[in-house]
Amino acid sequence: MATLRVHNLTISLDGYAAGPNQGLDAPLGQGAGELHGWMFATKSAGGTGVGTDDNFTRWGDENIGATIMGRNMFGPVRGEWPDETWRGWWGENPPFHHDVFVLTHHPRPDLRMEGGTTFHFVGDAPEVVLQRAFDAAGGRDVRLGGGAATVREYLSRELVEVMHVVVVPQFLGSGERLFGDLPLEAYEVVDTVTTSSATHVVVAKKA
Amino acid sequence: MATLRVHNLTISLDGYAAGPNQGLDAPLGQGAGELHGWMFATKSAGGTGVGTDDNFTRWGDENIGATIMGRNMFGPVRGEWPDETWRGWWGENPPFHHDVFVLTHHPRPDLRMEGGTTFHFVGDAPEVVLQRAFDAAGGRDVRLGGGAATVREYLSRELVEVMHVVVVPQFLGSGERLFGDLPLEAYEVVDTVTTSSATHVVVAKKA
Repeated sequence: MATLRVHNLTISLDGYAAGPNQGLDAPLGQGAGELHGWMFATKSAGGTGVGTDDNFTRWGDENIGATIMGRNMFGPVRGEWPDETWRGWWGENPPFHHDVFVLTHHPRPDLRMEGGTTFHFVGDAPEVVLQRAFDAAGGRDVRLGGGAATVREYLSRELVEVMHVVVVPQFLGSGERLFGDLPLEAYEVVDTVTTSSATHVVVAKKA
Repeated sequence: MATLRVHNLTISLDGYAAGPNQGLDAPLGQGAGELHGWMFATKSAGGTGVGTDDNFTRWGDENIGATIMGRNMFGPVRGEWPDETWRGWWGENPPFHHDVFVLTHHPRPDLRMEGGTTFHFVGDAPEVVLQRAFDAAGGRDVRLGGGAATVREYLSRELVEVMHVVVVPQFLGSGERLFGDLPLEAYEVVDTVTTSSATHVVVAKKA
């Protein structure tokens, strides 16, 4: 059965998935630029590294047929769309190559990009969006892309099946937390491994 | 030079050093009973395990000449001492065997126990208490025993030199956080290793 998965969600040792003051120049907030260094060093993300970090990075794309993401992950624009010039962080040929559902209360027409990616801007309940994503994925899994607030939303509804969290040996000091005051009784840690760059933790819904 | 060190400070994956509702029946709060299971399984803490977990546990006692701890770590009593019947969690022969400085705003006479442990109840500023502890330690290091609030206090003043944090693959959901909104620019992670029970992280003050 197709499931909802989270991958490569990286947090600092003090628990932040993003620093303060996210914006155009700092998509992940101040000080968070290095958070994903472990990933960009891997072959699957454009670097040269192979092995554990790379395997985890690649896993995030395997058997994924659609993506859901929060609006802040799509871009730095907040509130109403002033116009339709913002087309995502990823250029004209985004690396998704499938339907991407962007959660937002501000409607906007579908955005069809090169390479098979179409952004849908949806304001429905998380469950409804998930069902649309499953339909679009055609039997493959759906990836929940982030950011932290969106993952928290789906986690709290116990709709996430598997979550790969990466803890990097850095402190951000403040920002947006992934965990915290979130009941997680339905989940357990099933694997933990530390590489020279990061600690990978696999969280799964209890059977 | 003698330094202030933190050891075996264990937090859940979601960042809590203790669960909610600490008290006599649950010194570390609800749900936090298993937090230190990794440690009690080691030979140095009464179990049988040897290797990485055990080495870290043992490190916490090496070259320590005095201990500082928060009042909540000494016992479940809050506010004024109703009497002097509470003598710590550890029985008549506590495992310190040196001077222990208990931070509290409520004075109480020194408590001389068997085996060389004396509890001093002190309401001075953290720096003053630290100096007293260094004096008592006679050239050896001082251990900051916890809990989280006390460690945060000393961390924020950059008085901690080395801190061994242990992240266990569990969720508490709520409780007392170790990190969070604490500026940690002065510190860096110098080692991370994951065992079958826990992830050990060594944090040190930048040179």
